[in-house]
Amino acid sequence: MSAMDAYNALKTHLKEHAHLVSFSSLAEWDQETRMPKGAGDTRADMLGLMARLTHKMFTDKKVGDWISECEDSDIVANTDTIEAANIRELRRSYDRQTKLPKEFVEEEAKISSKAQQVWVEARKKSDFTLFAPMLEKVLDLTRRKAEYYGYEGEAYNALMDDFEPGATVTEVASVFDALRPDLVDLVGRIADAPRRPDIKIIKQPYDVNRQRLFSEMVAATIGFDFNHGRLDEVEHPFCTGFGPGDTRICTRFYPNDLGEGLTGTTHEAGHALYAMGHDDEQFGMPCGDVNSLGLHESQSRMWENQVGRGRAFWTYFFPQAQRIFRDALGDVSLEQMYHAMNNVTPSYIRVEADEATYNLHIMLRFEIERAMLAGDIKVKDIPAEWNRRFKNYLGIEVDKDSNGCLQDVHWAMGAIGYFPTYCLGNLYSAQFYAAARKALPQMDEQFGRGDFSGLLGWLRENIHRHGARYRAGDLCKKVTGAELSHKHLIDYMKEKYSEIYGI
Amino acid sequence: MSAMDAYNALKTHLKEHAHLVSFSSLAEWDQETRMPKGAGDTRADMLGLMARLTHKMFTDKKVGDWISECEDSDIVANTDTIEAANIRELRRSYDRQTKLPKEFVEEEAKISSKAQQVWVEARKKSDFTLFAPMLEKVLDLTRRKAEYYGYEGEAYNALMDDFEPGATVTEVASVFDALRPDLVDLVGRIADAPRRPDIKIIKQPYDVNRQRLFSEMVAATIGFDFNHGRLDEVEHPFCTGFGPGDTRICTRFYPNDLGEGLTGTTHEAGHALYAMGHDDEQFGMPCGDVNSLGLHESQSRMWENQVGRGRAFWTYFFPQAQRIFRDALGDVSLEQMYHAMNNVTPSYIRVEADEATYNLHIMLRFEIERAMLAGDIKVKDIPAEWNRRFKNYLGIEVDKDSNGCLQDVHWAMGAIGYFPTYCLGNLYSAQFYAAARKALPQMDEQFGRGDFSGLLGWLRENIHRHGARYRAGDLCKKVTGAELSHKHLIDYMKEKYSEIYGI
Repeated sequence: MSAMDAYNALKTHLKEHAHLVSFSSLAEWDQETRMPKGAGDTRADMLGLMARLTHKMFTDKKVGDWISECEDSDIVANTDTIEAANIRELRRSYDRQTKLPKEFVEEEAKISSKAQQVWVEARKKSDFTLFAPMLEKVLDLTRRKAEYYGYEGEAYNALMDDFEPGATVTEVASVFDALRPDLVDLVGRIADAPRRPDIKIIKQPYDVNRQRLFSEMVAATIGFDFNHGRLDEVEHPFCTGFGPGDTRICTRFYPNDLGEGLTGTTHEAGHALYAMGHDDEQFGMPCGDVNSLGLHESQSRMWENQVGRGRAFWTYFFPQAQRIFRDALGDVSLEQMYHAMNNVTPSYIRVEADEATYNLHIMLRFEIERAMLAGDIKVKDIPAEWNRRFKNYLGIEVDKDSNGCLQDVHWAMGAIGYFPTYCLGNLYSAQFYAAARKALPQMDEQFGRGDFSGLLGWLRENIHRHGARYRAGDLCKKVTGAELSHKHLIDYMKEKYSEIYGI
Repeated sequence: MSAMDAYNALKTHLKEHAHLVSFSSLAEWDQETRMPKGAGDTRADMLGLMARLTHKMFTDKKVGDWISECEDSDIVANTDTIEAANIRELRRSYDRQTKLPKEFVEEEAKISSKAQQVWVEARKKSDFTLFAPMLEKVLDLTRRKAEYYGYEGEAYNALMDDFEPGATVTEVASVFDALRPDLVDLVGRIADAPRRPDIKIIKQPYDVNRQRLFSEMVAATIGFDFNHGRLDEVEHPFCTGFGPGDTRICTRFYPNDLGEGLTGTTHEAGHALYAMGHDDEQFGMPCGDVNSLGLHESQSRMWENQVGRGRAFWTYFFPQAQRIFRDALGDVSLEQMYHAMNNVTPSYIRVEADEATYNLHIMLRFEIERAMLAGDIKVKDIPAEWNRRFKNYLGIEVDKDSNGCLQDVHWAMGAIGYFPTYCLGNLYSAQFYAAARKALPQMDEQFGRGDFSGLLGWLRENIHRHGARYRAGDLCKKVTGAELSHKHLIDYMKEKYSEIYGI
């Protein structure tokens, strides 16, 4: 077998693998959106079976052999080709998936499942001491996992690599550390600002059917292709896909809040536009997908925040919103609406946080989980440490654990190293957006007349079509000419909020 | 490996096989109900892959070995056990699936796909001569298929066995031949009847949302468990399922017709009640499923016709319908509604035919396809033969091929031997229903107060829980004490229509 035969065999095999994964994704989508309640057991059996099958298919010895054959050939000679990138990323995934012993994976699944149950109870009672013993076990497991993976520097690097390949804790911390003081200062100044948006504009009755219609109009206008996708309603918004030509977004609409449903839509549509922009020919291979959560989040955040909370966006959509929601918006001005969409108020819960304070929620988690993995913070001391930092960063006292260190499921799931990707997403988003604005000086004017194709085209060309061809950090340098920096995000926020809040 | 080990290995293997088939069924359901239009190509790739995987899994040599091992053991000693029945039916399926050479299956798929395209064109132009050459090819293929399968008597037996295991063309023809003259006579007398139902009662504006609500109420009342199922809307009604605890029905609602949506619901709910009544422990094995389309249709037809068009059913539901559809039904009486639901009028199109004439549509097709397979009718003579019989049976002249022999897709698909199962379903339905009435003398009174659990319980006990344990004909004898006869269907119709039509 020639190396090219091996490469093609890999491609065929992994395309079938990807189609099987699509079946699982479809079953999960159905579970969230349509499945009758009583079908949970059968669905779990189906998904368990498919997880076993696809894992076996990906970790098959012949996959490793094909990768090796390609690595020993001209295919990887020029590291800048799509083929070389595919082999590089396949090696990474294959090694990681084959490094964990079967017994470890089973133990991890068991403890993670148990930990999540205990976490639900502990959160309900708002008592961290109930959860602490399980968190010790999870920490022990994740440390062992890091050993199996192997790493340089801190064990945290090995874990974060599951979500953000190639990122190192030192680099991430240095960007976060640069952002934090400026952001704490900005959030503090906003809290004392002379004027505040009237958020009642957004938090008043909005007919849910009309919200759905408005969200569909917005999604279609920014480029979401309803011929190759759909929008449904769920408890927890997400984006998924079942192969080329079928990308689905799910959001939720509240009868007394226009913001949640709309920003849920622009956020998930941002993820979807990324997925819709992949190279279909690469389906099943790394370059037909993306393995950096930070990059993925950069796309959802850009459409949600830089675009969807921007004045130019509302210049186009506000008159339409006024016609659809006559009672709510008849007497409201564009400026009032734009301000209301950009309210900043420190609050306890990350998933409800605004665009600015959100990053402080993430940094806090990153710092604590890094220290706890390294053993620099004892598990029992986490609530005090959480609350201390929270007060410093956000200026408010945490009243109870359920509003503090017990609010997220990530640690119970064993997903340590996941949190920073959210803030990385915001940072990449701002840096990419700044580059796009430079390349497209007419962008705001285009948005103002409902034309988002300039930005989408730029993203397609520079980011979407590459899939995992470039690691996030490398892509950032390639596209923006510079390493990831806190500068773009804080500049963007300062500019926006100083005007809105008069600070 | 002991025989019991082989049996258990079969069960485990086939349960996984069934879960994978469920993934396909879910993808097909999604395709009919939700999938964005542009996702067709990817979906076809997914379904093609899964069809290959599941076929390979079922026809695996080890499956044949396990079956043989069981056949050589005590497991099949008592032919009346579930285990023996499973092995009997698995042998049948395994042999059939392994008897067709791969090249033949591929050729069949290709010609069937082509024939369906040509059929669409021919039907559009209402020109049978366009379709005739493809039908010749399909006939040639189905004859070869019958040879691969092997058969006694006519080749038709081998083909019908795909849909109705164990039924023979001689038995089916003898029941149909007995039914036909009485039914032709009854339909003729109805056509000349002194009074006719006022069908405008049903064919007037009915709000579609309220129809959906009413249909859900009806389905839930007769026993459809919405905790383990759901009702959706589609172009062509169907029932499907994705393993124990997840059975879904799909129907369609018309804004100017209450009947279609409602009978679509009771029909598909009948299929669903059957599926919901299977033994979950047997999931993946023949006794956890059913392989006779006639039996399946007997359940859908019973709930659609014997129950859902019955006076007792409407005694309970009509007052509710009046409250939901005030404008349409405010001035209508229960008797008028009951009569309108039982309109009989000969018409061209099978899928739009009423309960009585439907059977004549089927017999006509059965007779023609049997003769055409045997070579007793030439393909070119089909339209004339069709129209001649149609006039004899239904009393009306066929005006064009698209209203006659070009209306159904079955022949283009190569599904020769399928049609009789529809009429067998009606015959079994009537015979089972007569037995149920005898066993449950209070049944009508129970229906009248909305209690359908007596009938459902009887069906569960006598029919549903057995799956494919008994062949349809054997189950009929076991449950009703007699072989399938035309008597019950014609008696039921005579009784009902003589009263409604005053004949």
